[in-house]
Amino acid sequence: MRVGILGSGVVGQTLGTGFVEHGDEVRIGTRNPAKSELAVWQRSVRGKGSVGSFADAAGFGEILVVACLGSAAEEVVGAAGPKNFDGKLVIDATNALDFSRGLPPGLFVAVTDSLAERLQRRLPGARLVKCFNIVPAPVMVRPSIAGSTPTMMIAGNDGAAKKQVESILRAWGWTDVLDLGAIDAARGLEMLVYLWVRVAGSLRNFNVAFRVLA
Amino acid sequence: MRVGILGSGVVGQTLGTGFVEHGDEVRIGTRNPAKSELAVWQRSVRGKGSVGSFADAAGFGEILVVACLGSAAEEVVGAAGPKNFDGKLVIDATNALDFSRGLPPGLFVAVTDSLAERLQRRLPGARLVKCFNIVPAPVMVRPSIAGSTPTMMIAGNDGAAKKQVESILRAWGWTDVLDLGAIDAARGLEMLVYLWVRVAGSLRNFNVAFRVLA
Repeated sequence: MRVGILGSGVVGQTLGTGFVEHGDEVRIGTRNPAKSELAVWQRSVRGKGSVGSFADAAGFGEILVVACLGSAAEEVVGAAGPKNFDGKLVIDATNALDFSRGLPPGLFVAVTDSLAERLQRRLPGARLVKCFNIVPAPVMVRPSIAGSTPTMMIAGNDGAAKKQVESILRAWGWTDVLDLGAIDAARGLEMLVYLWVRVAGSLRNFNVAFRVLA
Repeated sequence: MRVGILGSGVVGQTLGTGFVEHGDEVRIGTRNPAKSELAVWQRSVRGKGSVGSFADAAGFGEILVVACLGSAAEEVVGAAGPKNFDGKLVIDATNALDFSRGLPPGLFVAVTDSLAERLQRRLPGARLVKCFNIVPAPVMVRPSIAGSTPTMMIAGNDGAAKKQVESILRAWGWTDVLDLGAIDAARGLEMLVYLWVRVAGSLRNFNVAFRVLA
């Protein structure tokens, strides 16, 4: 598949490499395609990845991934052209972390709404699935910590889109995938990241994730 | 030790039995000490448990546990007499679930404050530790699900009080205890319960908890 990734930080690059390793072709969209670290990334994926504007990436992808800073996400999907998302699977990996009052971060939306719902409202034609936001970037593509597999929890309104995400996750090694239901369940996934930050801080270890026991 | 438990529902009764089974003496405080299920509970603990008003239980306990409905917690500690909490370890097992808009529940406080912080402000002399709120009542006293031990995460401002809670937890079988830091980390623990409700709902199974992988 052709995958467009909006956001060129660690999450965007790591997911980009993950898709390439599984046979997909990736275009990373960024505000500044000339950034030197993206040239490094592009060499690392050996012709299977390209870099362009947000709109380039959104036009290119059959699957789109929102992987930018949460506070910029609404602006980024606007710059990418909302029409480019129509009918497509859109994986929302963003977080609502609010660093404006220092550390540890708060959340700029929670409880009665979520960033995922905001994006779905901005992109009414997108088949949006919240996924990946609850684990650190390296774990997204190598789902193992201390010999255990974390649980990937997803949410979204489109059942077929969630099935497609689940099949990507299983191909990437996610043996425990949990569909929480409609997109409003993303509130819980975004709020979990508030706790994740506290857990990582108290363990002084960012290689942290959660497993659901049931 | 003498343990006073504020709240006579499933959580209060289950924790009461847990303390009795580990050699403590328990008084459950309730609005209505004549409730027939409390007579049943009292018989079940064979002389090691008693029932009284909130103030009776708060005066009795060297350790106090707030185990009532979250929406009633501030009123309950007021009725129990804030002076009765001074200098004591107070375990806060409450949740901020808001059922006023139907199911699934929301949270009546989150992100920038927590019920634990509200209670600590009401009880400035209490050595309050958030604990137990992230698992179902039976798991609090039997920490095992599907052959694994969940992680019990705690938070509070008093290090010695947290050490005391940790030693209770270890005696009860909690092999994985994580101190998240000051009481404001309880925000993360209370927000986790929003997710817990969605996970339990999607699995149609309330015997659910989380394990931290690190």
